[in-house]
Amino acid sequence: MSLFDIPNLGIRAYDSPLPLNTVYGDQVCNFTPDTQHMHFSICDQPGRKENTSEYAYEEYTFETAGPRKKIFFDPTKTTCAIVTCGGLSPGLNNVIQAIVFELYYHYRVKSILGIRYGYEGLNPKFGHVPMELKPEAVRNIAEMGGTILGSSRGNQAVTIMADEMERLGIDILFTIGGDGTQRGAYELAEELKKRGQKRAVVGIPKTIDNDIVIIEKSFGFETAFSKACEAIQCAHTEAVSAWNGVGLVKVMGRHSGYIAAHAALALNEVNFVLVPEVKFELDGEKGLLNLLRKRLELRHHAVIIVAEGAGQDFFAADSGSDASGNVKLHDIGTFLTKKIGEYLKSISMDHTVKYIDPSYMIRSIPAIPSDALFSSQLARHAVHAGMTGKTAMLVGWFKNTFIHLPLCAIANQRKTIDPESHLWFSVLEATGQPMNMINTI
Amino acid sequence: MSLFDIPNLGIRAYDSPLPLNTVYGDQVCNFTPDTQHMHFSICDQPGRKENTSEYAYEEYTFETAGPRKKIFFDPTKTTCAIVTCGGLSPGLNNVIQAIVFELYYHYRVKSILGIRYGYEGLNPKFGHVPMELKPEAVRNIAEMGGTILGSSRGNQAVTIMADEMERLGIDILFTIGGDGTQRGAYELAEELKKRGQKRAVVGIPKTIDNDIVIIEKSFGFETAFSKACEAIQCAHTEAVSAWNGVGLVKVMGRHSGYIAAHAALALNEVNFVLVPEVKFELDGEKGLLNLLRKRLELRHHAVIIVAEGAGQDFFAADSGSDASGNVKLHDIGTFLTKKIGEYLKSISMDHTVKYIDPSYMIRSIPAIPSDALFSSQLARHAVHAGMTGKTAMLVGWFKNTFIHLPLCAIANQRKTIDPESHLWFSVLEATGQPMNMINTI
Amino acid sequence: MSLFDIPNLGIRAYDSPLPLNTVYGDQVCNFTPDTQHMHFSICDQPGRKENTSEYAYEEYTFETAGPRKKIFFDPTKTTCAIVTCGGLSPGLNNVIQAIVFELYYHYRVKSILGIRYGYEGLNPKFGHVPMELKPEAVRNIAEMGGTILGSSRGNQAVTIMADEMERLGIDILFTIGGDGTQRGAYELAEELKKRGQKRAVVGIPKTIDNDIVIIEKSFGFETAFSKACEAIQCAHTEAVSAWNGVGLVKVMGRHSGYIAAHAALALNEVNFVLVPEVKFELDGEKGLLNLLRKRLELRHHAVIIVAEGAGQDFFAADSGSDASGNVKLHDIGTFLTKKIGEYLKSISMDHTVKYIDPSYMIRSIPAIPSDALFSSQLARHAVHAGMTGKTAMLVGWFKNTFIHLPLCAIANQRKTIDPESHLWFSVLEATGQPMNMINTI
Amino acid sequence: MSLFDIPNLGIRAYDSPLPLNTVYGDQVCNFTPDTQHMHFSICDQPGRKENTSEYAYEEYTFETAGPRKKIFFDPTKTTCAIVTCGGLSPGLNNVIQAIVFELYYHYRVKSILGIRYGYEGLNPKFGHVPMELKPEAVRNIAEMGGTILGSSRGNQAVTIMADEMERLGIDILFTIGGDGTQRGAYELAEELKKRGQKRAVVGIPKTIDNDIVIIEKSFGFETAFSKACEAIQCAHTEAVSAWNGVGLVKVMGRHSGYIAAHAALALNEVNFVLVPEVKFELDGEKGLLNLLRKRLELRHHAVIIVAEGAGQDFFAADSGSDASGNVKLHDIGTFLTKKIGEYLKSISMDHTVKYIDPSYMIRSIPAIPSDALFSSQLARHAVHAGMTGKTAMLVGWFKNTFIHLPLCAIANQRKTIDPESHLWFSVLEATGQPMNMINTI
Repeated sequence: MSLFDIPNLGIRAYDSPLPLNTVYGDQVCNFTPDTQHMHFSICDQPGRKENTSEYAYEEYTFETAGPRKKIFFDPTKTTCAIVTCGGLSPGLNNVIQAIVFELYYHYRVKSILGIRYGYEGLNPKFGHVPMELKPEAVRNIAEMGGTILGSSRGNQAVTIMADEMERLGIDILFTIGGDGTQRGAYELAEELKKRGQKRAVVGIPKTIDNDIVIIEKSFGFETAFSKACEAIQCAHTEAVSAWNGVGLVKVMGRHSGYIAAHAALALNEVNFVLVPEVKFELDGEKGLLNLLRKRLELRHHAVIIVAEGAGQDFFAADSGSDASGNVKLHDIGTFLTKKIGEYLKSISMDHTVKYIDPSYMIRSIPAIPSDALFSSQLARHAVHAGMTGKTAMLVGWFKNTFIHLPLCAIANQRKTIDPESHLWFSVLEATGQPMNMINTI
Repeated sequence: MSLFDIPNLGIRAYDSPLPLNTVYGDQVCNFTPDTQHMHFSICDQPGRKENTSEYAYEEYTFETAGPRKKIFFDPTKTTCAIVTCGGLSPGLNNVIQAIVFELYYHYRVKSILGIRYGYEGLNPKFGHVPMELKPEAVRNIAEMGGTILGSSRGNQAVTIMADEMERLGIDILFTIGGDGTQRGAYELAEELKKRGQKRAVVGIPKTIDNDIVIIEKSFGFETAFSKACEAIQCAHTEAVSAWNGVGLVKVMGRHSGYIAAHAALALNEVNFVLVPEVKFELDGEKGLLNLLRKRLELRHHAVIIVAEGAGQDFFAADSGSDASGNVKLHDIGTFLTKKIGEYLKSISMDHTVKYIDPSYMIRSIPAIPSDALFSSQLARHAVHAGMTGKTAMLVGWFKNTFIHLPLCAIANQRKTIDPESHLWFSVLEATGQPMNMINTI
Repeated sequence: MSLFDIPNLGIRAYDSPLPLNTVYGDQVCNFTPDTQHMHFSICDQPGRKENTSEYAYEEYTFETAGPRKKIFFDPTKTTCAIVTCGGLSPGLNNVIQAIVFELYYHYRVKSILGIRYGYEGLNPKFGHVPMELKPEAVRNIAEMGGTILGSSRGNQAVTIMADEMERLGIDILFTIGGDGTQRGAYELAEELKKRGQKRAVVGIPKTIDNDIVIIEKSFGFETAFSKACEAIQCAHTEAVSAWNGVGLVKVMGRHSGYIAAHAALALNEVNFVLVPEVKFELDGEKGLLNLLRKRLELRHHAVIIVAEGAGQDFFAADSGSDASGNVKLHDIGTFLTKKIGEYLKSISMDHTVKYIDPSYMIRSIPAIPSDALFSSQLARHAVHAGMTGKTAMLVGWFKNTFIHLPLCAIANQRKTIDPESHLWFSVLEATGQPMNMINTI
Repeated sequence: MSLFDIPNLGIRAYDSPLPLNTVYGDQVCNFTPDTQHMHFSICDQPGRKENTSEYAYEEYTFETAGPRKKIFFDPTKTTCAIVTCGGLSPGLNNVIQAIVFELYYHYRVKSILGIRYGYEGLNPKFGHVPMELKPEAVRNIAEMGGTILGSSRGNQAVTIMADEMERLGIDILFTIGGDGTQRGAYELAEELKKRGQKRAVVGIPKTIDNDIVIIEKSFGFETAFSKACEAIQCAHTEAVSAWNGVGLVKVMGRHSGYIAAHAALALNEVNFVLVPEVKFELDGEKGLLNLLRKRLELRHHAVIIVAEGAGQDFFAADSGSDASGNVKLHDIGTFLTKKIGEYLKSISMDHTVKYIDPSYMIRSIPAIPSDALFSSQLARHAVHAGMTGKTAMLVGWFKNTFIHLPLCAIANQRKTIDPESHLWFSVLEATGQPMNMINTI
């Protein structure tokens, strides 16, 4: 019995229609035993079991994702639904397409609904009618950015959503969204359990910032930092084409600067990378402005990437929250543009500052092929889990393996860049940026 | 004698080193006779000579561009220089490269200077030292956006620039820039004439907005509207992925909406195109806001492109000028974003507005191949003209032919979209936008 | 009365539903008078009328394309059809989409058929059923390469096609294809005239080689040479990464080397451009092989572009014709690869030859934005012409203007590169290739 | 002491110039202890230690890559060299650039040589003079495909190469290449050991096919399959645009079909994926030709991807080896094109087959950003290893961690697709291809 089984699931009465078996060595792919877990123990000395120094011993056990031999839902009578929530991320349509193809062609589930405009589509008051999702409807969507279902921010009341699932006869709901969405999904799954209903909620984690704990890669992230590189090259071109030209690019990254760091590493053209995880000061000897001045004196151009969540401590007041419950960020990009201009003017340094905010041109593009592939693999595994009767879980990627995680595991936590990591050190190397930009350290 | 000859030029003493001849039919390309002009008469009835109705008769005569048999400057003793001025435009490096290659390899001029940072580089007070431009220095620059010479806005005093040309021994100065730059080039050429110096100033017109009169295509324009299409597709994706989603894109176009119009025609995904040439109102039955509401009610998403120079009459105060002497434009993009948000809120329409300003991501990219080719052809013709001893002129493109124009011909005029043109009508057809958005018409 | 009117057309009884007028200066676009022609006289001296030297005087008169005030076909009762023939070219789907949009939304023609698989679709024996083309069917096709209608080579008997037009009630047939297709279209139009039927056949010229006479630009050509540049850059990379590396790329161009020439000019990385218009030899002092050897000795890498129709005189035997009636070309690419390898081996020169044939990766991609725009403008003008009751004509582009040409005007002729033109001279300059590669000249 | 230390290394006398430390929690990145290993034990049940079923228990121990506190080579006196061997792969220039930057800026090694044209550059008989690699020489190479050093196939005699290393004073040689290259590197390291020389040879594994054992990702692979997707989309467009159109694409993959499989999964447009790991027949009920016929009857188009190493058993004779010692493959692409054409003709099925071989357009492009990043991280770790005095090893990537592997570990083995894996099963799902295409199974 799995941690993720719908309560009182009973036996799984149906044979999977997938043409796999359980024989190793016959050249036919095998079902994943439902009891299978991946247990990773990683230590810095073979045989070591105790944690004698930091980072020295880590141990993880996760249920392995994959198709099961016995499934819970009868494909001929099952209705599935897909909902996409929150901000856009490349790969959403790939996930939708792969869920539909897997369900329709391989599990032979013919009733698939597309819930419109995020969780709003599960609240009748908005009047968004679900789409029927046949293969023809999703055949050509993978080359398109965005989500054909539409999205919205914020959760709806779980009782309303549970009612609507019941009304629409949805047996399995696939929730594609970030931590807010999956928190909502978790509560919805709990509500369904409370009602004693054998309906599943399976999450597919979406975070363009790549900031979900445990999960080593989220779909859309590679596309995002790849596209960010284009904007940074433009900033670089603007910078070198002017005397003391400064190119400043704001990229996504509310809590985690992975897009900024990865783009900087992919390019070798960036001089400062400002991320939420590493504080920096503007003024003083070690502050950004003085360092920028020195860089300009040396090379007469500079490129700065700032993650949107960096430098929020420069702003006094709180700016409220959006519908997703995310704290509204102060605009560090225009703030820095202004500060840099004022400073360079104050020291009578001729200069030009060009500020680029490419966010909507990043998040709305189609997935690059590696992300397309990854998105569709995630989706297939979500379908396997759902059809098996698992709920309140999401599919993740860890050490080159697809795994199952509890929906609640990712709540209230973030994966962030460790300033002591080699990733961050590589950024410092690639940029020449000093290890700290705080005057008192 | 040509209109563009340096005054008191005397005879052209040198044979062109180019391997052309003047024999037709021998499979060898011919020199362009220096007296050759293209005379276009275009009428709407064969034989008609008088202008009996509008648009019915047009007549143009232009000196034909091309390599001349006799040249004025001795390649072995000539120093040429290149300067790039004003905002970036795709193709600048292609022009630089092609000038250097044509001079160095074909005319065998070995002394070529790259003036740094626009006209600032001709004013010693800035201390920008010219680069020597050998083929090796420009071999790989065509794949790079921007200008390897750097640029700046605004003109320097012509007496200072003329002194500097003399000091550096520059015989031919190639000025790559917009109408402000070419106005400066014209004054510089006049100053050189006044001093009785046999130095040439040859302009290569640069306008990413494609707004120079007579000239049917400017380098960088195709790249610009092609790249703008990407931003608009992102706006479209954002719009369709939200309930009543509005995607708003601001593109370049201070006086002329060609980028906006061409991008809209290339895409068929745009609902409103706002350009400087066509006034529009926000309020009232026929105003943008009401039309937008109707569009959203019908299809629940909308895409708007606005050229930066559109709607400037919404702003009361003047906002001064920049260093190039261009009036500073009010930011119509953020203005519209705010107005649209307020209006839709006021009528209680749930909505999302996403605003994209891709300008710096457009103007700083490398030229697409068609622009690369066009840029280098323009540059070759500028070299032919300069070596022949022509001055105060620029090279243009008209009816599929390269021509010479007086530098002063393009000053104080703009090519703009005629609202009665088929181009604009096609935009109205492609968008469904009404012919007028003024309540009183 | 126009040259292109359907015989015995009678009066044009219907007002165009387009919201244009005939008043100049009222900011509303004007109908094009049906008698309007563009008359171009281009001479090399203002006032000259006689042809005193070659290239000195040219005169052209063409009927101007554009929407007419009075149309012949009643939109409510008209059936239109579109057929795409011959090899793929970028922009086909843009043409299809724009025809459908113009007919449906602007002329309000609701009956539009898509003939499947070229002229085969007008021959019942193939059993290809026409598609109904509503706007929804073509909404997202512009981002796709190829043709949603399918294509085939060769013409069908005109009597069969005329019968089928009658059976399907097609009033206007838009034929998108090359010179073979338009020859078929011409014969079909003649057959319909002979039958006294008031049905129109309007051609939209397609030639990825850009080799149709008079017409200065064909749709798909810019996309094609742009994409060819990518292949050539790969060949260049392969060449420079090996000792005496030779990169050879075969591009399209059966009779005309425009793609090869334009790509070479856009790149500045090519050493030899071999086109059908300019003969070359392999052996001897001036032959390609010896020149290649010298180039390799100097720089240790070389890039060669060959148009598919170049060097056909190296092959003794005829290789027959394809279904379009085109002579089957011998494969000059593999021939040269072999010859170069054998020669370099014979002189004991270590070397590597990499041969790239990107043809199908060029012709099947979507149109770049400039081509997308051009394709849709062509298509709109074809619709205007068809609805007005014109037949046996095609829409072209000449001196920046859309015009009407007789279908028969383009038959049995080719636009080719003049070896004496500045275009070809620029290619010689950009490559360093000698003006002739024939030993006896 | 590490497995990889140069024999008789003695103590590491120099402090690393990198600004790291060994304190955890101080926000400063830490040196990697030289004794650190990653020990992975992965089992399917927590606590399980024995291998009770297949795939159930795996255990790996690898030395961890990373910068060491003490280094062996004195940066002020060390000469490093870089050599690139074998076929091109995206990312080569990124590796070169990152090695130079890391050595020059961070370890402050000022003497860096670029060996030209692979191992030929270490054999004086070829006369290739090494390049000096300063940062300026590699500043802009990351956007270029290929290798600025040039490459060649095959190994040179190790005694000659060892002599040349001595003559040039090379202390550390970085060998970038595939398994043949690394076999050569291994022998060279052994030769140096035999001579008692304290010189290091550090490998950076290159395989565009992603077929090196243990290593989960090789640089260039993501770029390769991403670009392959473009070719496949073209094949798809060609196929759907013709009646019974067949698009056939040959991709790289001598022994392993990863590029084919990944591209097929990223696209969802492919019907058959033929790889070296899975045998298939042409004829008979279950053979490819019959399956293709059925597909065409159903949908009238089909797309096939074939890895170059697939179907070699169809060819009788051996075709020899190339300079790298690789068996020369028979051309399965043209073979299949011919067979398919003959078969469809034999059953009188009208059809069109378009064959695309994009190999040189894939391997010669610049790395996409994710590969650029990965390449430079690999390179940094190779530098850390080399400076520490390790030899006969290569840097790899395993379970999200950079590790050290013995050069000999990868010899004579290949990573191939397991037909029982979920990867292959996903390919079957995505294509609809049957699990076996052998008539007797």
